[in-house]
Amino acid sequence: MATKNVVIIGGMTLGAKVACRLKRLQPHWQVTLVEQQPDIAYASCGIPYFLAGDVPELQGLMTTSFHMVRSTNFFENAKDVRIKIRTVALAIDRQAKKVRVCYLDNAQEEELPYDFVVLATGSQPVSLAVPGAELSDVSAVSTLKEAREIRDRLSRGKITRVVVIGAGLQGCQLAAAASDLWGVETSLIETSPQVLPGLLDPPLARMVQQHLQERGVEILLQETIKEIRPGGADHALEVVTGGSRRATDLVLTALGSKPQTKLAEQAGLLVSPAHGIIVNQRLQTSDPEIYAGGGCAAQLHLITGKSVYFHEVSLAHRQGRVIGTNLAGGAALFPGIVGSFAGKMFDLAVAGTGLTLAAARQEGLEPVAALVVQQDHAHFYPQADLIYLQLVADRQTQRLLGAQGVSHNGDALVGRISSIAALLQQGASLADLANLEMASTPPFTTALDIVNAAANTAENMVAGYNQAITPEEFQRLFLEEAPDNLMVLDVRGAANAAPFVGYFKDRWLNIPQETLRHRFSEVPRDKRLILVCNAGLRSYEALRQLQTQGFTNAVGLQGGIASLKKAGLLTIT
Amino acid sequence: MATKNVVIIGGMTLGAKVACRLKRLQPHWQVTLVEQQPDIAYASCGIPYFLAGDVPELQGLMTTSFHMVRSTNFFENAKDVRIKIRTVALAIDRQAKKVRVCYLDNAQEEELPYDFVVLATGSQPVSLAVPGAELSDVSAVSTLKEAREIRDRLSRGKITRVVVIGAGLQGCQLAAAASDLWGVETSLIETSPQVLPGLLDPPLARMVQQHLQERGVEILLQETIKEIRPGGADHALEVVTGGSRRATDLVLTALGSKPQTKLAEQAGLLVSPAHGIIVNQRLQTSDPEIYAGGGCAAQLHLITGKSVYFHEVSLAHRQGRVIGTNLAGGAALFPGIVGSFAGKMFDLAVAGTGLTLAAARQEGLEPVAALVVQQDHAHFYPQADLIYLQLVADRQTQRLLGAQGVSHNGDALVGRISSIAALLQQGASLADLANLEMASTPPFTTALDIVNAAANTAENMVAGYNQAITPEEFQRLFLEEAPDNLMVLDVRGAANAAPFVGYFKDRWLNIPQETLRHRFSEVPRDKRLILVCNAGLRSYEALRQLQTQGFTNAVGLQGGIASLKKAGLLTIT
Repeated sequence: MATKNVVIIGGMTLGAKVACRLKRLQPHWQVTLVEQQPDIAYASCGIPYFLAGDVPELQGLMTTSFHMVRSTNFFENAKDVRIKIRTVALAIDRQAKKVRVCYLDNAQEEELPYDFVVLATGSQPVSLAVPGAELSDVSAVSTLKEAREIRDRLSRGKITRVVVIGAGLQGCQLAAAASDLWGVETSLIETSPQVLPGLLDPPLARMVQQHLQERGVEILLQETIKEIRPGGADHALEVVTGGSRRATDLVLTALGSKPQTKLAEQAGLLVSPAHGIIVNQRLQTSDPEIYAGGGCAAQLHLITGKSVYFHEVSLAHRQGRVIGTNLAGGAALFPGIVGSFAGKMFDLAVAGTGLTLAAARQEGLEPVAALVVQQDHAHFYPQADLIYLQLVADRQTQRLLGAQGVSHNGDALVGRISSIAALLQQGASLADLANLEMASTPPFTTALDIVNAAANTAENMVAGYNQAITPEEFQRLFLEEAPDNLMVLDVRGAANAAPFVGYFKDRWLNIPQETLRHRFSEVPRDKRLILVCNAGLRSYEALRQLQTQGFTNAVGLQGGIASLKKAGLLTIT
Repeated sequence: MATKNVVIIGGMTLGAKVACRLKRLQPHWQVTLVEQQPDIAYASCGIPYFLAGDVPELQGLMTTSFHMVRSTNFFENAKDVRIKIRTVALAIDRQAKKVRVCYLDNAQEEELPYDFVVLATGSQPVSLAVPGAELSDVSAVSTLKEAREIRDRLSRGKITRVVVIGAGLQGCQLAAAASDLWGVETSLIETSPQVLPGLLDPPLARMVQQHLQERGVEILLQETIKEIRPGGADHALEVVTGGSRRATDLVLTALGSKPQTKLAEQAGLLVSPAHGIIVNQRLQTSDPEIYAGGGCAAQLHLITGKSVYFHEVSLAHRQGRVIGTNLAGGAALFPGIVGSFAGKMFDLAVAGTGLTLAAARQEGLEPVAALVVQQDHAHFYPQADLIYLQLVADRQTQRLLGAQGVSHNGDALVGRISSIAALLQQGASLADLANLEMASTPPFTTALDIVNAAANTAENMVAGYNQAITPEEFQRLFLEEAPDNLMVLDVRGAANAAPFVGYFKDRWLNIPQETLRHRFSEVPRDKRLILVCNAGLRSYEALRQLQTQGFTNAVGLQGGIASLKKAGLLTIT
């Protein structure tokens, strides 16, 4: 039987997956996996949860679901894959079809002949480019070794202050991890005006920020790091930004990652420096005998049609399988990504897929965003949690563009976002989401589930029925600018409204929605009105009633008082 | 402004939704809602959960999420909808465009002129057609009044034995409800050879059956009810089947429901007696001025292209909105259904969408079914629950046909099934599901999530790589027929396998998968082999290894030992 040599460069998720899939399809082929680190195929996505103490043992990140350690021996015995750890791939000679490697333990080099190469070099953390970034106690905590050391120090109480630089998903999770179990004073510093830039639009980002702050994380936004320098007597370091100084025992950098493409570039393959190695839908590079996937490969974004960088462990699994199939002679395709993500900080889950409103605008689209708040399951069934969901769609075509949410019920949130991701991958429309047929029962869904409701709200906004402002616009207009001719019409019951009426006096009028049609005469016609209720349903109902009566000066508050409170924008109780 | 008269017949979910949506779009129109019962728009889907005590107050089923009772007054004040409760629609005069109604309280009749009618008559329980079905203490528990009475009696300890007839979703939930909180001796009687016929295939139905039995519900399958008759001194009734008698205080019938189409038939509209009133995608009946939706309307099944009966509360919400939009002059479409459902019995959630394997075969398709078992989230993150999922796809076209699952994490299960439902509605393929981009993070998903894994397994089965038998086939072949030339090769670790080897002796060989490639000589070539592991992953790996070595006599066990145990088919520990 004809055998082939396949050399896989990189032994994390993608490399390991390619090797396993390929060996199941072509058991006689010789598959060699080369990895620089001493560990292979560990779950780096679990590192923040290990640091937080949620994952008790680091060992867990290195085992299979049936508790086998993913060691060199395991891959050799269970999978018949040759593993070379602590081995660096130096160059690919495409003429001679050889990969030159160097063994770190003895500095010896060897040339590995190949029929196919798989580039699974993944991504590397973006490093901080300021003086002092090279100091010890400044870490990107990207390896198991770093994770183990840092958790040891945390658990021994050796660290009382941590500064996390970068409030992306990893940074927020690291800040929560440091603060949560270990009670460390934690500061999170971000150059953008919001946490999770690029992932969440401001309404939901504010909710995450508020959650982190409530749990004791100090958040500094729009702050640029100038320097890290040795600290004084109490703390090893001092982080200096444009406007602040923070003494700290440890700096964790979380500035995102970038594709590892050096080897591909040296080999003359087509590479987009920012996005990764260019591949086709079969995940072949510009050399059809060299495949690439995961963090080192450029991804086609299915919504924008553009090449992007996107690094995600589950993506590596799916692309690894496609590569394994194609190497073996199959014809699997990977059409592209929609950019789904999820995370958990303290007890708040966050997830999203597709484009944010901001990203959609940058693409030159004319998007609409519907912010809806709804319980995860029937209100009459106990222990309901709220889901806060923002849906983004294109006004012109009504095509779905993206969705993002936060909830304390992470399973429920992830289920909704994933359902929307499925539709995004199919190029579906608002009408498709409005008719999405969730598996529905009171303990797990509402009869009109939030995904359907979000589509309905977006349709109402596109149709012009629902005119609404965001929580941030409410803050700016009503709380900050506070012009004389602007007032709130609160259509909740009197008991809910009373504290607000008491505080804001004649700027806050209460007419419960169910009484409104008998009380139109009480609504001032010379004021701009913001209609509010708890979640945005009754204010929409009231808005329609007022529009019918010729009021043209009213808008609703998207997401209602619930969203304002969740975002920490209005704390009257 | 031109106003129109709209008469809505039926005041449950669909009718109320149409009324509310329509009034928001056409506030000046006169909308009248006619309902026979004294209550409107209550959550009948919550009745089993109210009986079980999960829902503490019946009031909860009648309120909005902001705690307003959905009373006549509420609809009139908050929604400006005229409500006529305890009012029966007797006939529709399509020439004169009038609906004749009768007020139950005074037996007076009136004719309501209309521009449009909406038939929201819903469904009615299928009644038991045996002698004694009319006895008191035989109830379909379909109204709030019945629910209240029965729960009162349960909670006062007046009922010690209950027989539930029909093991569909409602029957299983009623049996669990009676048995759970109230400790009532409960028997569940079903004519089919399995619980949840039509909803689940046997592998998962067995798991639900086992769960109910473990919690004390007696289940009698393939039993036909012959008679219900007055009981002896201790219990009011006796239920007589072909093969048994059960004394009981109460009989709950759960034989499914059928569309209420009498009015439509009388009015000369096109009706499919079994499926409901025929409607187009705008949900217009054969008279374009009369709309219908929800339980009384026939549904187009998107997978089979056939007209079916399907009754589900969330469907009524979605169709109600479409009707409201179209009445108001819009152009909303309802393309059809895929048949998603969910329920919860004790602490087991069950959900599904699309076709079962059996249904797909009945359609003349050549389906493949992949039974996979996987944790709901990363194994290293604490408190993982298993999800048992069966995916059905078409061998020829690789089109997705359906999925069904059970899990103790209902949110996680419903999220997966709903994601697959989204793909089903789009006519997607196995490859689409293999590349479905879940929002992924260790606390809520596995890196290769079960939905992706299920698609991969089905693809491997279609390709012929994965040859596997079901738990039922295992039971029949290995436990019942037990031919001499059949043995199990258990590829788990020695500790897991030891009790089985001890019990089955030389019919159960243990070679851990990671040692198999050094021990091929120990594998008998003259036997038929069933490869087993815990969930089906390692047995597939081993199967591929054996196939390479020329073994043609081996198959894997789908879903592994975990599925056998969950179904109560193999209880050695």
